[in-house]
Amino acid sequence: MKSIEVILTPSLFKYRTTTDDFMVVVIDVLRATTAICAAFDSGAKSVIPVSDLDELKEYKTKGFLVAAERNGKKVDFADFGNSPSVFSETDLAGKDIVYSTTNGTQAIEIAKKSGKICAASFVNMDAASEWLFSQQMNIVVLCSGWKNTVSLEDTLCAGALVELLELSGLYSHICDSSTVALALWKSSKNDLGEVVEKANHYQRLVKLKQHNDLEHCFRLNSSTVVPVWNGIEFLNYNS
Amino acid sequence: MKSIEVILTPSLFKYRTTTDDFMVVVIDVLRATTAICAAFDSGAKSVIPVSDLDELKEYKTKGFLVAAERNGKKVDFADFGNSPSVFSETDLAGKDIVYSTTNGTQAIEIAKKSGKICAASFVNMDAASEWLFSQQMNIVVLCSGWKNTVSLEDTLCAGALVELLELSGLYSHICDSSTVALALWKSSKNDLGEVVEKANHYQRLVKLKQHNDLEHCFRLNSSTVVPVWNGIEFLNYNS
Repeated sequence: MKSIEVILTPSLFKYRTTTDDFMVVVIDVLRATTAICAAFDSGAKSVIPVSDLDELKEYKTKGFLVAAERNGKKVDFADFGNSPSVFSETDLAGKDIVYSTTNGTQAIEIAKKSGKICAASFVNMDAASEWLFSQQMNIVVLCSGWKNTVSLEDTLCAGALVELLELSGLYSHICDSSTVALALWKSSKNDLGEVVEKANHYQRLVKLKQHNDLEHCFRLNSSTVVPVWNGIEFLNYNS
Repeated sequence: MKSIEVILTPSLFKYRTTTDDFMVVVIDVLRATTAICAAFDSGAKSVIPVSDLDELKEYKTKGFLVAAERNGKKVDFADFGNSPSVFSETDLAGKDIVYSTTNGTQAIEIAKKSGKICAASFVNMDAASEWLFSQQMNIVVLCSGWKNTVSLEDTLCAGALVELLELSGLYSHICDSSTVALALWKSSKNDLGEVVEKANHYQRLVKLKQHNDLEHCFRLNSSTVVPVWNGIEFLNYNS
């Protein structure tokens, strides 16, 4: 039996109890890990996450396509913001996308140290789970949250993933954060649309008129992409 | 309308968005804030929280009654551990209790900097809420958790408090942690006994045979105590 531990916000990653060989599943429903899936769905060859905007600028001057947002808004010099629906509508065939967001890429940065990362969201829940089954590793689910506070949508997604993994009979959760996330998911999944509207970042994106994205980000299993970190960039395992 | 923000573990306190004049409500269901209520119920004059065991030893040599636990077990040199049921069975009339625990007193230590603290648990939920109504302040609910990980029982208690405060029509929660805690509480309150058995620290105390305490800690509104910090020690507002 493998273990699942849920970390509700990146600054709590250092307090995890899972320390041996494990896979980090980074979740940022609104919108980084959803957008990474969308980029691969539109044919991207790789997604290179960077947390620092100066580093991103360097990539831009080298001719890379860069995607970046801060506080929900596209960064001026970037080619794209953090919109999965924009990625969906764009042909990215064979492109390498350099990518930076407020929370998602910070979480990835923290997870990098542990070496093994994949990205999950509501859109690729089944695909990510299937791939995780094949890895047979202990799992740490790392929610990106919002500036080190807990986010409702990531906690819900973590709960959905815990449920799915445990249904296989191969995994068992070991921490109270998992129990909280699982209970939240079970009590919300039949009214998901209504529940997620209470999320602070959902409301932030409503104000920014990102309705297409909000609809996109909660479309369960609309993608078969599994973004897996190879030490330098994310590649789509299911390509 | 006043705001409520829930912080699920002490290390996240610094990321709160509530920064102006506010009241911190510290929660450590298993067992610090429950035990502090029990001490006042048994007549204690004050409870002095200290996080450092060396400081506690100094108090002991000065003749104070000291209560201390680490990892659920009584510290060797202490007069008491962290058992609310032991406090309940002991006459503490007029005594000052110096008190140190694994998580609860660490949370209090962090909250001290903001100046205004009260202690709540399932046992004094109504009493604490009534007192909070009279204060008319924004509220930060600080869950003690377990070694900076989230604990199920504190999250549930925070959710119960959010529900109670909002029922008054005087408060509104402002963060996703509150939404998570409230949803967890609403989906669990009718089977509270069954839900709390899933908590890691509940199981830890079962192994330590602390069944009396576990029963005590979830006895809703069994106390009318309101422990309020005066800058040096907790006094019972409702004495």
